[in-house]
Amino acid sequence: MTSASEKTQAAKPLVLSIDAMGGDRGPATIVAGLALFAKRNKQAKFILHGPAAELETLVDKRQLGKRVEIRDATGVVSMHDKPSSVMRTGQNTSMWSALDSVRDGKAAVAVSCGNTGALMLLSMVRLRKLPGVNRPAIAVLWPSRNPQGFNVMLDVGADIRADAQDLLKYALMGASYARNGLSLPTPRVGLLNVGTEEHKGRAELKQAHELITAQADANGFEFVGFVEGGDISGSRCDVIVTDGFTGNIALKTGEGTASLIGQFLREAFAYSPLSRVAALLSLTSLKRLQARIDPRRKNGGVFLGLNGTVVKSHGAADATGVAAAVELAYDLAQSGFGDRLAARIASAANAAGMAATTEPTDQKKDGTNS
Amino acid sequence: MTSASEKTQAAKPLVLSIDAMGGDRGPATIVAGLALFAKRNKQAKFILHGPAAELETLVDKRQLGKRVEIRDATGVVSMHDKPSSVMRTGQNTSMWSALDSVRDGKAAVAVSCGNTGALMLLSMVRLRKLPGVNRPAIAVLWPSRNPQGFNVMLDVGADIRADAQDLLKYALMGASYARNGLSLPTPRVGLLNVGTEEHKGRAELKQAHELITAQADANGFEFVGFVEGGDISGSRCDVIVTDGFTGNIALKTGEGTASLIGQFLREAFAYSPLSRVAALLSLTSLKRLQARIDPRRKNGGVFLGLNGTVVKSHGAADATGVAAAVELAYDLAQSGFGDRLAARIASAANAAGMAATTEPTDQKKDGTNS
Repeated sequence: MTSASEKTQAAKPLVLSIDAMGGDRGPATIVAGLALFAKRNKQAKFILHGPAAELETLVDKRQLGKRVEIRDATGVVSMHDKPSSVMRTGQNTSMWSALDSVRDGKAAVAVSCGNTGALMLLSMVRLRKLPGVNRPAIAVLWPSRNPQGFNVMLDVGADIRADAQDLLKYALMGASYARNGLSLPTPRVGLLNVGTEEHKGRAELKQAHELITAQADANGFEFVGFVEGGDISGSRCDVIVTDGFTGNIALKTGEGTASLIGQFLREAFAYSPLSRVAALLSLTSLKRLQARIDPRRKNGGVFLGLNGTVVKSHGAADATGVAAAVELAYDLAQSGFGDRLAARIASAANAAGMAATTEPTDQKKDGTNS
Repeated sequence: MTSASEKTQAAKPLVLSIDAMGGDRGPATIVAGLALFAKRNKQAKFILHGPAAELETLVDKRQLGKRVEIRDATGVVSMHDKPSSVMRTGQNTSMWSALDSVRDGKAAVAVSCGNTGALMLLSMVRLRKLPGVNRPAIAVLWPSRNPQGFNVMLDVGADIRADAQDLLKYALMGASYARNGLSLPTPRVGLLNVGTEEHKGRAELKQAHELITAQADANGFEFVGFVEGGDISGSRCDVIVTDGFTGNIALKTGEGTASLIGQFLREAFAYSPLSRVAALLSLTSLKRLQARIDPRRKNGGVFLGLNGTVVKSHGAADATGVAAAVELAYDLAQSGFGDRLAARIASAANAAGMAATTEPTDQKKDGTNS
């Protein structure tokens, strides 16, 4: 995606706003990740937020001086800060400053490794919600059996609640993300439930089922109905829609299971001298496996439903992980995803007012879907 | 557990009630699983429910005639039957008959591979809920990093809702299950949430946090507070308490992730001739891994909160899986788990009436915990 779009945008380099603080490994790792990405992508420019003196040293060391503009911000949002208190007193933090670069139009997208709750609340306050969106969502890419290798799941924790209207918006936003982020022209959307029969589940899910069914055609996605936990990594759909409570627990359960199996696998191969020999011979195969499930490959939850795109990298991300989050942010900005999503939500909001009409088209004039 | 208890019970063999129908693979597989278990355990007797003529042939083939009593039941509950209609018209089914053997005191525990929803509803109707339990739960054993190799999670789908009082009962029932099923004298209980801070999550979770905290000491378990999805397979606690909606999705997400990694692992080892050689040499290690995560090793959700124990085997279980479910049922019956759980719930219900007193003891007179 990157190389193709680079040509068309060569004249006007994209600017990414990077919060250098708040990650578990400190700003040196963030800058190292930035350098990794900058080596692969010669176009992008960066605004880096944090304590100027410290960042200058790091940026010089990586020879990024010409592509990085530093915004001094002495405050740091820690993992334990309450979102509400960051909102009240966090004006001097690197996180606040990183979001304001997007708010002020200086950067196309913001990336942070910091406290998720604080980043979400600050994003809502500084960037504001898109008209028509009541609850923004965090979307992640999840390894799957589908040809594209990943499914989109949302919400994974922006809000612990979601009513039927919110779930409809998640379907629209998730489909838009899958279209732009995974290059799927007509994504298949599923609604997460405890069974696939239409009579199952909570009241808001049955209502959301109806709402999403009615909107699918006009918005260029296919609705496969209810799906179950096993379908998150399956091939029945490309986008899994759920509330942030369930989505967060599903995400962490899946990560925990993968990590447990990884440990068991290492232990199985360390069991005896013979199995250690087998492990040596299997190294290539095991690396091939690792590459497919490595969470650093697609690191980053994307905040959807705001006036501006924010990518939340894993707090514990190493340089490879940070580079992947920055790349995701860059790709989304390049595709004009933010504007397309906003147009999609606005069009759906109009459509909801005229239910049975077929007015909103699912094809833009240039033949691409938003 | 089996061999030790066999001695004390030698005079009075336990009887297990087995639903021969409703599994995806038909009654031949159920009887094959029964035969596997019967070979390991020479004591147990069985009441087998289903079409008599068909079952007689299968039982004779496995030479189980002396240990199996057949109860003719011509009706079968299919996976697609609505629970409510089974309740109205299912009197002639093998599932109904299997539960009635427990209800009538002819068998200590029932095992079925059939439709979960129908089995739960019929169990509630035929066995009735324990006094003090509003919502029964389904508990499963989940591979974990703990020394005992498994954690207990409940509810995984008996009910899609749970209020704070229900979650408290799940904590009591789950602790009791871990004590009797995993031999943990003081199980550590965690309440599933989207974060570990006490201010996080839905209102009923905060309320349940208080209720469980107040009951932990008197009921012989440790409450570790909120836990996250990653802790289901972790070592922070032994029992994970959650509502049946979240638990069902977590269970299926974990199973789906494990299955996806298994597929990736096979593909990684089938990639090239060299990796296929490596796979051959790794066979022992891979089997060691398989044995630790094989769901058939601990097959069976246990219905808790009823007057009688019901074990739900996976519908797709093969003979090995069926044997594991029957063994789990046998072990639970041997340990007198049903009575202990009932006593525990009754004592907690009393304690709730006299909040601050220390009246209910957590030790029985013989020094064991219930």
